[in-house]
Order: sequence, then C-alpha cells, then structure tokens
Amino acid sequence: MATLVAPDKTSPVEDVEALHKACKVRKTQSTMATLVAPTNHSPIEDAEALRKAFKGWGTDEKTVIAILGHRNVYQRQQIRKAYEQLYQEDLIKRLESELTGDFERAVYRWMLEPADRDAVLAHVAIKNGRKGDNVIVELACALSSEEVLAMRRAYHNRYKRSLEEDVAANITGHLRQLLVGLVTSFRYGGHEINAILAKAEADILHKSIKEKKGNHEEAIRILTTRSKTQLMATFNRYRDDHGTSITKKLLDHESDDLYKAMHTAIRCLNDHKKYYEKVLRHAIKRIGTDEDALTRVVVTRAEKDLRDIKELYYKRNSVHLENDVAKEISGDYKNFILTLLGKQD
Amino acid sequence: MATLVAPDKTSPVEDVEALHKACKVRKTQSTMATLVAPTNHSPIEDAEALRKAFKGWGTDEKTVIAILGHRNVYQRQQIRKAYEQLYQEDLIKRLESELTGDFERAVYRWMLEPADRDAVLAHVAIKNGRKGDNVIVELACALSSEEVLAMRRAYHNRYKRSLEEDVAANITGHLRQLLVGLVTSFRYGGHEINAILAKAEADILHKSIKEKKGNHEEAIRILTTRSKTQLMATFNRYRDDHGTSITKKLLDHESDDLYKAMHTAIRCLNDHKKYYEKVLRHAIKRIGTDEDALTRVVVTRAEKDLRDIKELYYKRNSVHLENDVAKEISGDYKNFILTLLGKQD
Repeated sequence: MATLVAPDKTSPVEDVEALHKACKVRKTQSTMATLVAPTNHSPIEDAEALRKAFKGWGTDEKTVIAILGHRNVYQRQQIRKAYEQLYQEDLIKRLESELTGDFERAVYRWMLEPADRDAVLAHVAIKNGRKGDNVIVELACALSSEEVLAMRRAYHNRYKRSLEEDVAANITGHLRQLLVGLVTSFRYGGHEINAILAKAEADILHKSIKEKKGNHEEAIRILTTRSKTQLMATFNRYRDDHGTSITKKLLDHESDDLYKAMHTAIRCLNDHKKYYEKVLRHAIKRIGTDEDALTRVVVTRAEKDLRDIKELYYKRNSVHLENDVAKEISGDYKNFILTLLGKQD
Repeated sequence: MATLVAPDKTSPVEDVEALHKACKVRKTQSTMATLVAPTNHSPIEDAEALRKAFKGWGTDEKTVIAILGHRNVYQRQQIRKAYEQLYQEDLIKRLESELTGDFERAVYRWMLEPADRDAVLAHVAIKNGRKGDNVIVELACALSSEEVLAMRRAYHNRYKRSLEEDVAANITGHLRQLLVGLVTSFRYGGHEINAILAKAEADILHKSIKEKKGNHEEAIRILTTRSKTQLMATFNRYRDDHGTSITKKLLDHESDDLYKAMHTAIRCLNDHKKYYEKVLRHAIKRIGTDEDALTRVVVTRAEKDLRDIKELYYKRNSVHLENDVAKEISGDYKNFILTLLGKQD
C-alpha cells in the first residue's frame, strides 16, 4: 500500500522546469545576492540565541542583526519554526514587540516569506492610494510571472480577498485598467521576439503617448500582456524609430497619474535593476531619507540581485551605496541595512 | 549530504491546502464523475492492446474505446508513457492518424492532460472570433482559480504566448475588458460573504444593465474580480431587490456581444452545472447536433461532475441524457461518448 499522496494532475514538463528553476535561483543567489549567509547553521541554537537577546531590560539588537542579517530565506523559516517549537511563541510577533521604528519594520519585512512580504507591500501600497501606485506597478512588473502569482496567492491567504479586487476598488478608467492589467498578467517567459509586432506596437505606443487625451487602451493592452522580451524589442524599436526613449517621452506628462504609472511600468519591465538603482538614489538623496523605499529595495533584492544594483549605483553616482546609506541613516536600522548590503562584520 | 532538491520558497499552509484539495478531488471524482475506471490496470498491457488495435487494415475502434474510455487522467498519461517507451511513437499522434471525424477529435481532447486540453479549447475559441467568446468565458468562469491558472501555464508551453495577449488581440472596448479580466482573474476561493457589498454591487449591476449604452466598467470590475461566493450573494440580492434574476434581465439584450458574454459569465459563476446542462440541451436539441459542444462538456466534466449534470438534465428534460445522445449521434463517436457518460458495457 503506497502512502504517497500525489496530485491527480501533474505536468512532468512543468516539474522539470520548476526543479531547473529552483537550481538556477540558487546559483543566481550566490553570484548576484548581497546577503552573506553560512552554509551550516543550527536553527535551534539561533532560536536560543535570539531568546537570550530578548531577555531582561532592553533587547540585544546586535545579536538580532548578527543572526537574522546573515540567514537566507530558508534558514529564517527554520529559525522561526524552531523558535515556535521551543517557546510556543511566534518569533515575528516577538520581534515586533522587541524592536521599534524603521528597524522593526525592516526586520519584520525581512522575516516574512518573499511572497507574503510582497503581499504585505502591495496591501500597504493600496492603502496609500495614488501615492502607492508606483509600488503596485513595481511589484507587478519587476517580479517574474511566477513571483507575481505567488504574491497573489499569499494575498488570498492573508487578506481573504484577491489582490485585483482591492487594486480595482478605488480607481476608475485607464489607470485602473493599467494597474489591474499589470497585477493580473501572467506573462509568457520565453525569449521569442516578433520584430514585425515590435514595430507595429512601438507605433501604437508612440501615438498613444502623443495624444494626451487620446484612447490609451491599446497601449495598456500592450504593456499588460506582452512578454518582457517582446516589450524590450518594442521599446528598442521605439527608440530607433522616434529618436528618443519611450520613458523620456513619457516624462513630458509626469504630472498625470496614468503616464506616471506607465513610466514606472516601462522602467521595471525594461530593466528592473536600473529602476531599483533610481529608487535607491531618490530615497537617499532627497531631503529626509525615504526609509520605506530604502527598506523595500534592500529587503526584497538582498537575496536576488542587490549586488548588481549596487554596481549600477556606483557607476551612476561614483559613490558606493553603503557609504551613502551610512551617511543618511543611523543606529540599529543602519547596521541592519548595511549587513543586508553585504558588509562583513 | 542531502540530495533532496526543494524549492527555496515553500508555504506550509499552501502545501497542506494542496494536499487536502488533492484528497478532496479524489473523493469528489468517485461520487460525481461518470467515468468508470478500474483501480488496477497495466499501462504496458494497455499500450500493447492499443498497438494491436492499430495493426492491419482499419483500426479496431471498439478496443480503443474499451481501454481509453475506462481510464482516468493519471492512467491515460501512464499508458501514453508506456506506449512511447515500447514503440518510440507518440500515442496521441498515432490516434489522430488512426481515427477520423468527431470520434478522433473527442479522443484527442480526452487524451490531453486537463490543463493542456483547456488551453487547446481556449486557442480554438480565440480563432473562432466572436463565436468562440462563450467558450472563453466558460473556461474562465466554470473552472476553479487553480484550474484557470494551470490552463494559462499550459497555454504558455503550447503556444509560446500568454492566453491574455491572444484574447486581447482582436477585440476592443468593454468586451475586451470583460474577457481579458475573466481569463486573468485569480479569484479568492474562500466562503466569506460581505452582505453590504453584495447589496451595493447588486445595485451597480442593475444600473449597468439598464443603461444599454452606459458605462459598464463597474459591472466588469465586479464580475472579473469578486470571489464566486461573494458573487452568488450579489446575484441573490439582485433577485431579492429587483424581482427577477440578473440573467433574465440580461436576456433582454441578447443580440449584444457584451451582454451575451456577461450572461454566460454570470451563469458559469453562479452555477456551472446548470450552465453545462443547458449547453448539452442546446447542443442536442438544435437542428444538426453541435458535436463540438457535446464533446467539450462530456470530455471536460466526465471525471469531475458529469453525474450531477446528467441528473440536472433528467430533471429539466424528463429524458435521460444518454437516451437523447444515443438518438442524435452514431458510430464510434456515439459509443465513446456513451462510455464516458458511464454506460456499463
């Protein structure tokens, strides 16, 4: 008698692809990530050390950073599990009560599983109204199709509603069409390019941007459904045919919410690392640091491609990201962010 | 050293839910399915018997039906694998060359994995233009969120494009918004009902239907994003407040493509079994049977809930579905469809 419970429907091709992807992600993480994590760690010892750090008056934040700032997503889940088993207490809840301010928020986001974290970010963004549109667009366009899907699943679990129904609820017209279209799309991930289509759709985009009060439905259709590879070809074609990049052209109308959202979407779809570099730059250089944006980029990309983003930052600003960050923020928050940026202790 | 390859991201909650669902599906299949399949079968013997049936002049269709008409989705995949290994030939391709007409099409659809079959059905529907809209809507609304997703994944694999980009390509306006919204939605599957929302949105739907040339964006938003449970509450509220069902009201405008699609969507979302009963009734009772529709419903529901649909058919028509089917179609196609309907040999 077999005990294995297997789904009735399986796709061997998809399983192989998923396994291949899982292996690839690992490899990617080791070269482009900034997170420094040991290959061996004991979840139980980590949980015990954290418990000790919480004991008595005040919290030993250094220990919290030394442990959690050096554990990958899998290891953090293991620690959370071990902590729960040892002390019948949710580690994340305990961290929330022990820590404060930007440091607390950063650790909280860091501790969540990526898909769950993305769902939280999306939810906060929706509650921010028009000010949060850029984060919705960023999540929908910078994440992979599978990651967007995982976020939507996590959103169901956490909020008992679909992401799209909350996104759709408080907007109307073209902006709604664009945002809902972006969060619901499941783009094809292959690398085929249709050059004729790229030319035709570059023209459609050009027309749509020119006519300020025009009908933008075709532009929205293109941006919300085509594969990233196809869109890159379209954006390149745009530049070739019209002598300027489509994002530059969109900047002429930056006061308009729809154009702003299209601008963000195109930047994220075209080159999300360059986009993140700019988010970091703006977060740091403006008067009064934007800690939310800084935390968001560092926490979401530290295990993915923050090393590349750091390099882009250095190229663009001639200063290392760590140096700029160190000047602008302070205390435990600073130590934690610098740790995720790969600072060796 | 561990050899297990596990994804970096896992959600224990989702895994438990998926396992629970897998068990539930099994149970459901045994009570609501019409397919009669043995618990034990030998894929190799089945493959050998099929090979023999293909040999010589003509094909032994009876054997093909006796085997494939009595194997569940997992067993059919096993047979296909065994056949490939034994004879270095794809069983589905061979079946296509051995069989003809409606019988061939039915066996072909039956042999595909469900998600892949749904992708094929969607693709055929898209190529049919406006005539295929009802099938697109049916797939998007009668399937579960997870099944829609599996179809979209299969569509990527098979056509190297996203389902939504093909759906969006040849329509405009509200009809596009509705169809794209339906195929891209990932509805929340929980059973929470917000009664205040149901009342408010029943009113919005009422207004939207009344104003024939009105703005239907809000109605589209509701139909494309809300959970099925919430929508059922909304439709019930509509009937309470307006003295008639929303589908009846929509029938006043049945010549309009948008209203037709909304009508189909509401029927599928509200009670997909009753919807399928009607599809079967129309396919059989019209002059010249609609074999495509008959095949589609029988093949896609035989392992799910065709027993319930058959009961509804008997209640509505006072004739058993099998009897009506037997009168309208003939030959191997008839034998195959009756087998899937649960006829004991």
